Amino acid sequence: MTTWYIESGPEADVVISSRVRLARNFENYPFPSRMNSGQELKVLEITKDAVLNCEGGKKFTFFALKTMPQIDKQALVEKHVISRELAESKRESGVIISNDEKVSIMINEEDHLRIQSLYPGMQIDNAYKLCDKIDDILESKIDYAFSQNYGYLTCCPTNLGTGIRASVMMHLPALTMTGYIRNVLEACGKLGITVRGLYGENSEASGNMFQISNQVTMGLTEDEIIANVTNIASQIVEQERNLRNRLYKSDPIRIEDKVYRSLGLFTSARIISSEESLRLLSDIRLGKDLGIINNISTEILNEIMLLIQPANLQKAAGRILNPDERDVKRAEIIRRKLGYS
Amino acid sequence: MTTWYIESGPEADVVISSRVRLARNFENYPFPSRMNSGQELKVLEITKDAVLNCEGGKKFTFFALKTMPQIDKQALVEKHVISRELAESKRESGVIISNDEKVSIMINEEDHLRIQSLYPGMQIDNAYKLCDKIDDILESKIDYAFSQNYGYLTCCPTNLGTGIRASVMMHLPALTMTGYIRNVLEACGKLGITVRGLYGENSEASGNMFQISNQVTMGLTEDEIIANVTNIASQIVEQERNLRNRLYKSDPIRIEDKVYRSLGLFTSARIISSEESLRLLSDIRLGKDLGIINNISTEILNEIMLLIQPANLQKAAGRILNPDERDVKRAEIIRRKLGYS
Repeated sequence: MTTWYIESGPEADVVISSRVRLARNFENYPFPSRMNSGQELKVLEITKDAVLNCEGGKKFTFFALKTMPQIDKQALVEKHVISRELAESKRESGVIISNDEKVSIMINEEDHLRIQSLYPGMQIDNAYKLCDKIDDILESKIDYAFSQNYGYLTCCPTNLGTGIRASVMMHLPALTMTGYIRNVLEACGKLGITVRGLYGENSEASGNMFQISNQVTMGLTEDEIIANVTNIASQIVEQERNLRNRLYKSDPIRIEDKVYRSLGLFTSARIISSEESLRLLSDIRLGKDLGIINNISTEILNEIMLLIQPANLQKAAGRILNPDERDVKRAEIIRRKLGYS
Repeated sequence: MTTWYIESGPEADVVISSRVRLARNFENYPFPSRMNSGQELKVLEITKDAVLNCEGGKKFTFFALKTMPQIDKQALVEKHVISRELAESKRESGVIISNDEKVSIMINEEDHLRIQSLYPGMQIDNAYKLCDKIDDILESKIDYAFSQNYGYLTCCPTNLGTGIRASVMMHLPALTMTGYIRNVLEACGKLGITVRGLYGENSEASGNMFQISNQVTMGLTEDEIIANVTNIASQIVEQERNLRNRLYKSDPIRIEDKVYRSLGLFTSARIISSEESLRLLSDIRLGKDLGIINNISTEILNEIMLLIQPANLQKAAGRILNPDERDVKRAEIIRRKLGYS
């Protein structure tokens, strides 16, 4: 696997990944919530044609959600390539994914089109550039619903205007450990930034992973929004780094104890839940970033973070597993990946 | 170190050690609680002379408790060579210890003499034989307080008669895990057997270690008492073994998970208390006895069990350590002994 979520990017000690998505709709079709299946199929076809037949279209693959096995959908959700909503959609919906999985275009999700780009580390600008490129290709072939007053029209008013959502996934163990994360969350709220857990809306901050993104999509340009999210993310990165160093300096042995115990459990367990895995991974990642652990790469940690999720785990195992079997297989894969089996 | 508490003995999968002690008093001196210091010194001298100048007396060393450093006393308590009471005694008291630490004769503890013998594994009979031999040597030179009606007279009536206490230290993780230990404790009470923790009276059963011993010292011969304790200990050994096998067969992966997690923590921790160490050691010992772990010897586990105790830990470190330093040094020693440093 050499896809984006395995690679390590800039500021990888704190920033796991950057994501930008654009919400777009066809001018001549009702929003997905009001379409009939004939219209749904039409939107699918037009989008598919626009992307797959463009220059470079061979790097993309189309998948119809209706015929996709449940486990494959779930695996894409775990990779953040499609949304939970799309995976659960009853519509004629689809997704176009680039071979490196950096780009995905969800069709007939909440909006007709959700163009998204994912990059490892702190690369919102690159993610935006890529989205913008795909957007240009689509716009050359599709009439978007656009208003001179409001900008791009979207199904939900919270996406109106630019239709952009720029988000950064960050690993914030020191802010969490010390409780300062509360101040960060509060400040974010005041600055128009939403904070969520590993799997977006309503998800818990598993493994000290937090996703920050812009609340407002209107009244600012795309560049202003990107700059704003980047700026706030950078400040959080600095706070997290300072706090890590302060924590480590003030009581190195206690941090080392925490890190090594988690590594010990992670490489010893024969039964392990994804929740516990994420918690231990967080300590191990911290240990790596503080230079306590030197023989494990960020890429391996990223790969494991993905492989411990239920669907990707079952795909790796090559068969459907019940929850108990998953906990055993998860422990097996972790040990194998880290060379402890 | 090749002393008894490192060696592995018969039934070592369940029985850690066997101990027999005889309570004896001089006929012509008041009990220790009523002696003056002149009498105390006299009892010390007579006993010392009797043992050190007997045939084979060169294998013994005398220690006066008053001049012994606190940490050395504590280390002997941790090895079960002397009692906590003797270590804390304000009297002119002493102890004569054989080079292999299998025999110790405490002088001016609760009674004038407490002759004890310690063996690894299930060897109450050997422990008794050795005690009896020492007792014969002493009796040939000392007039014991003895009544035709009551037998050997002792300070506390619970030791009257034979003055014998035979005890077996057992590792009972399966009985504890399943809760069946409660039935065992109840049955023991009815059969005249006392159950205690790792450090005798009023001590908790740390690390699933239980010490069983005879309650009654009168109305039975020494041989009957030894046979009774041996018999009950053997039954408990069988129950523990059956339960271990049943537990392991019914859910092997869960037991392996428990064992490997404990081993993982034990060999990874940078800060560890003696309480946690004993708990983890119990799981590791179980893993070894079930054949899950094969590369760690019982001797190493016994040695570590001793080295993690505060005084022996400080002696191994070569200096006095405060509790926080001890937790760090303990983790260090564990890793070194198991080859993980």
